[in-house]
Amino acid sequence: MPSPRLGLLLLERSPFLLNKYLAWAGGLGGRAGWAATAGGDGRCVRLSAHRARRLLASVDTLLFDCDGVLWRGESAVPGAPEALSALRAQGKRLGFVTNNSSQTRVAYAEKLQRLGFGGPAEPAGHEVFCTAYCTALYLRQRLEGGEVPAKAYVLGSPALAAELEAVGISSVGVGPEPLRGVGPGDWLAEPLDSGVGAVVVGFDPHFSFAKLTKAVRYLQQPGCLFVGTNMDNRNPVEGGRYVAGAGCLVRAVETATQRQAEIIGKPSRFIFDCVTKEFGLNPDRTAMVGDRLDTDILLGVTCGLKTILTLTGVSSLEDVKGNQQSDCSSRNKMVPDFYVDSIADLIPVLQD
Amino acid sequence: MPSPRLGLLLLERSPFLLNKYLAWAGGLGGRAGWAATAGGDGRCVRLSAHRARRLLASVDTLLFDCDGVLWRGESAVPGAPEALSALRAQGKRLGFVTNNSSQTRVAYAEKLQRLGFGGPAEPAGHEVFCTAYCTALYLRQRLEGGEVPAKAYVLGSPALAAELEAVGISSVGVGPEPLRGVGPGDWLAEPLDSGVGAVVVGFDPHFSFAKLTKAVRYLQQPGCLFVGTNMDNRNPVEGGRYVAGAGCLVRAVETATQRQAEIIGKPSRFIFDCVTKEFGLNPDRTAMVGDRLDTDILLGVTCGLKTILTLTGVSSLEDVKGNQQSDCSSRNKMVPDFYVDSIADLIPVLQD
Repeated sequence: MPSPRLGLLLLERSPFLLNKYLAWAGGLGGRAGWAATAGGDGRCVRLSAHRARRLLASVDTLLFDCDGVLWRGESAVPGAPEALSALRAQGKRLGFVTNNSSQTRVAYAEKLQRLGFGGPAEPAGHEVFCTAYCTALYLRQRLEGGEVPAKAYVLGSPALAAELEAVGISSVGVGPEPLRGVGPGDWLAEPLDSGVGAVVVGFDPHFSFAKLTKAVRYLQQPGCLFVGTNMDNRNPVEGGRYVAGAGCLVRAVETATQRQAEIIGKPSRFIFDCVTKEFGLNPDRTAMVGDRLDTDILLGVTCGLKTILTLTGVSSLEDVKGNQQSDCSSRNKMVPDFYVDSIADLIPVLQD
Repeated sequence: MPSPRLGLLLLERSPFLLNKYLAWAGGLGGRAGWAATAGGDGRCVRLSAHRARRLLASVDTLLFDCDGVLWRGESAVPGAPEALSALRAQGKRLGFVTNNSSQTRVAYAEKLQRLGFGGPAEPAGHEVFCTAYCTALYLRQRLEGGEVPAKAYVLGSPALAAELEAVGISSVGVGPEPLRGVGPGDWLAEPLDSGVGAVVVGFDPHFSFAKLTKAVRYLQQPGCLFVGTNMDNRNPVEGGRYVAGAGCLVRAVETATQRQAEIIGKPSRFIFDCVTKEFGLNPDRTAMVGDRLDTDILLGVTCGLKTILTLTGVSSLEDVKGNQQSDCSSRNKMVPDFYVDSIADLIPVLQD
């Protein structure tokens, strides 16, 4: 099932339609029964030992966000590797679902190993669903049968280009692109690559007006696909700091082109469909564990999963409260079933 | 009266609130009486000779957008200089209201002279209300009384910096800014200027992730103002082509900071307030002439002016029809009282 954003055209200047999307998303999943099992009206309850036992008995698979959940930068969250080892020991299947488009699937698998999160050595990265990889899957699906070799203009990382390459899609655009000439006439005279059939926007520290101009020109061509890896507005950095996320760059291109990008990452359903396809999941017996209400938890709610917020990352209980008390139904949906201070809180239950 | 966007905070990920803004804007102005005089239910009627005579008898001042109305690039719209000369000869006061932030007021006055649009030589630029100038007026008003010398971080042109300088506000940031270092730690370690009290985002062909990062860091500081010159999503170039407009860059910064910029240009009321303050206008006896429904015409509607769409620029009668037939009340407001193929159509009436 495609993302609800797919194919939507921006007909007005600023209708990014998130609220409609959220309203749609919130209508999915038949959660009433589970909500009663979880917190009922008092949703977002602490995952006590009792509740954790019941929850773990009801799921086969746990999907984890990475940054802010398993690690922060190059440091594992204390106890997180032990929690994951214990889950593996109980026979749970684990998946890692991240919006970060700056690393390949294999690089993520290496990081999981390096920081002590184990996992099968072969096939490398089998448990990882990062947006670089899932964007490649999406494009392969969409560009199949094209008459010319599939090629994408990539505002993003070498890792994103590598994942595209791995499915047979070549790319142009990665890296810095200087502004040449002194005005629009010069900027619009820069040569385009005639083989490009898609523009992919991810996190790109080399983003520039010159690149924006090229992306817009490709997107004016009939049939050129427009894909965004994710809509995260910020990428958190240690110490409560952040840098602009891929969502800022997608918005800039959307605004110029008046087109809406097809979004791969959370909370878009597409990334979950990738997991389902490879894992053969039953959503009823799957939990999503994340630190962000607007991506991880919303994805879980959208897809009918059980949801656990961990407080080691971006979102806080204050944020949950704000969503619960909001008169905006779209925000009301961004509330998890449970919360933990850290996924390390699961260890005692798993060692029973 | 401040722009309705002033002070609004982005509380959710994507609520740019344009629709609410438009709904608000459309509620202003008490146009019922005039609508009956103009097209009534059949709004956007051709400005026939008869209607033009009635209209001109009812106004003292005509405000013109420039690009797409008076000229395209360096070529005057045929007949436009003669039309303006005839209006001046009839004693009408003329004003030029443009969202372009890449030229100073004086440079605009020179262009008006160069292309044959006349106007008083002294004081230079007195008739011109460009966003570079009006942004400077706005900041002077807001930064007055600050304890440190007022300084702005400018994502924009040297002209924007020059207009700020003219009212005593120094600036940093104009021109290219290379990305230094290899990751967020390096990017966030770049020194900031401690005197900066505002971030101004205009059209900036040197826009980059490095500049976005700096803008975001300044805007995290308490009390730092956030101003956008205009929200135009595209800047038209000859031959139906375009480059991304300042609105794309403002959106990128808004998305990262989750703050909403204070917008100076059309359709924000602030730019009209600048005209009113300097000209002492009576909105009832003023007409706005422009080529864009979402800026010029909406400004006119918002401020209770008579509105004339000219078809020599961006918007078409198809666009008008789309707005008239839309079930979205905000789009219904972006319909002019009259249209002309070109402002040269006024010449026969003025020569009677």
